[in-house]
Amino acid sequence: MSEKLLCGVDLGGTKLSAALFDTNGTLLKKEITYDHVGLHPDQMVKVMAELLNTLFQGYVITSADIEGIGVGLAGHILYKEGLVITSSNFTHSMQNYQLVEKLGSHFPDTHILLDNDANVQALGESLYGAGKGYTTMVFMTVSTGVGSGIVINGKLLRGRSGTAGEIGHCIVDFDSDMQCTCGNFGCAMALSSGLFLPELYRRKLRNGMSSPCGLEESQTDELDGRLLETLILKGDPIAKEIMCDSADIIGTSVYNIFQLLNPECIVLGGGMMKLGSEYFDRIKKKFTFLAKDMMREELHLKLTDLGADAGLVGSAALLLE
Amino acid sequence: MSEKLLCGVDLGGTKLSAALFDTNGTLLKKEITYDHVGLHPDQMVKVMAELLNTLFQGYVITSADIEGIGVGLAGHILYKEGLVITSSNFTHSMQNYQLVEKLGSHFPDTHILLDNDANVQALGESLYGAGKGYTTMVFMTVSTGVGSGIVINGKLLRGRSGTAGEIGHCIVDFDSDMQCTCGNFGCAMALSSGLFLPELYRRKLRNGMSSPCGLEESQTDELDGRLLETLILKGDPIAKEIMCDSADIIGTSVYNIFQLLNPECIVLGGGMMKLGSEYFDRIKKKFTFLAKDMMREELHLKLTDLGADAGLVGSAALLLE
Repeated sequence: MSEKLLCGVDLGGTKLSAALFDTNGTLLKKEITYDHVGLHPDQMVKVMAELLNTLFQGYVITSADIEGIGVGLAGHILYKEGLVITSSNFTHSMQNYQLVEKLGSHFPDTHILLDNDANVQALGESLYGAGKGYTTMVFMTVSTGVGSGIVINGKLLRGRSGTAGEIGHCIVDFDSDMQCTCGNFGCAMALSSGLFLPELYRRKLRNGMSSPCGLEESQTDELDGRLLETLILKGDPIAKEIMCDSADIIGTSVYNIFQLLNPECIVLGGGMMKLGSEYFDRIKKKFTFLAKDMMREELHLKLTDLGADAGLVGSAALLLE
Repeated sequence: MSEKLLCGVDLGGTKLSAALFDTNGTLLKKEITYDHVGLHPDQMVKVMAELLNTLFQGYVITSADIEGIGVGLAGHILYKEGLVITSSNFTHSMQNYQLVEKLGSHFPDTHILLDNDANVQALGESLYGAGKGYTTMVFMTVSTGVGSGIVINGKLLRGRSGTAGEIGHCIVDFDSDMQCTCGNFGCAMALSSGLFLPELYRRKLRNGMSSPCGLEESQTDELDGRLLETLILKGDPIAKEIMCDSADIIGTSVYNIFQLLNPECIVLGGGMMKLGSEYFDRIKKKFTFLAKDMMREELHLKLTDLGADAGLVGSAALLLE
């Protein structure tokens, strides 16, 4: 039997990419477009179909040549229905959008699967990345938000509605007055992720911290992971403290995953991890401190090693589950 | 093929019981002893073997008549090695005790399995109790401590070392100064379980609460779930507030399980649930408040319906996994 190809699509807010892989995860061909930005969902799917047709040239003659198309995007997804419940990544937000059905009208004989970015990255890490070879592994992304994907025996744990893995919305600070986008207080995400850096900085300023090389309150809105890193390098103690607080919350979340799931491996990825080894080391230190002698066998806490194509190869991997 | 019988053993600190079931979970015969109390582990296993021999009379002639023996007890267990890492349930605490091997010397041809009480109760609920018919379910016990067992497709999620399910040691209040038996602060267990009722009561007294029908500081050591219930019935506002605080923490833990695992059903059991409908209703209310519109499909939050034999039938169910 000749091996079929896997097609992965990574639908991001600024970049739409699609790629062909063999079943070993080797990249064969990749296409990228930015033409989808600002379009309505139906037009966006049309752009996606055109990109896929370009990608397929020379590789895919009939639908029998590929296992199918796996699509990953940031948002709430109903996997079993191929539905985007909501995604705020785009100018025109997707709400209850039948993405698989719409894309399927362009590729009628092709198997199409859809899942969220954390889940597809978890699959990718599990099959081809830092999580390879582990029976139970969790991929955790610390980015604009915080999320995770749980892989057990090569399959994603999706739960009843497909929303499992939302470690960012787990409450770790019961008495906190930091409100998350979900409306609750003290979620891990609200205390650690990129989206909340401006508010975390403002609170430090209001609590009396000041820094000659730091931001003024009026400048805090522009604070993201990259600027945080710059400020830390400049010696801003407020930025440093925010990084440490964030790492302690992520370390606590890693510990909570350890207690509840006892996986062999947790892989960390996402933009905030680019803060570098000081951030990662503090996460590890917090986790190790909390786990104490309760860890019977080592939990391998690793950084992603799939890089920029993690979402693409992970989306393709949906077809192998 | 004639159906084999299942044997379950519930090894508790005060009661040692053993029972035979058919594979539908129907109780055929049960034996109970208290003779093991205060004994060293090896002697305790001898008492267990004698109890089993009494149980088997008239039912089990050869090892071929039973699927095997499943044993459940409170403690840290290494399932795959049949080892009790530690259990503080007994006068002479068990440490790194090869319980399966020891019991096996009395029943050389019999399949023997061992797991902790939360896991076996989860299996029991999943197969025969309130969790029957769900693909993914979690059993959570709120008792002296707090623990859980996670069942996916009829099998326990044990994780790498078999310690998965420790929801009680997940940190829900990052800044708390309530220290748990594990050494950490702000674990769900330290803020809600029976073991911590005395300290929670003392803290309310020290914070200036007082009650004519309540306890004085010198009496708090005797506070357990049953006394808490009595005090609430007497109208003690301190006891009432502790019950509400505990329910809010358990409701938050239920919510965290929902976010991370998105199960179809969570079954609650354990001594604290005997506080009754006010306690259970407050847990449900907290969970529902936190879940808001994030719950796409209903999570069935239920009370155990297996009663006192949950541990026994659950231990027997280990043989069906």
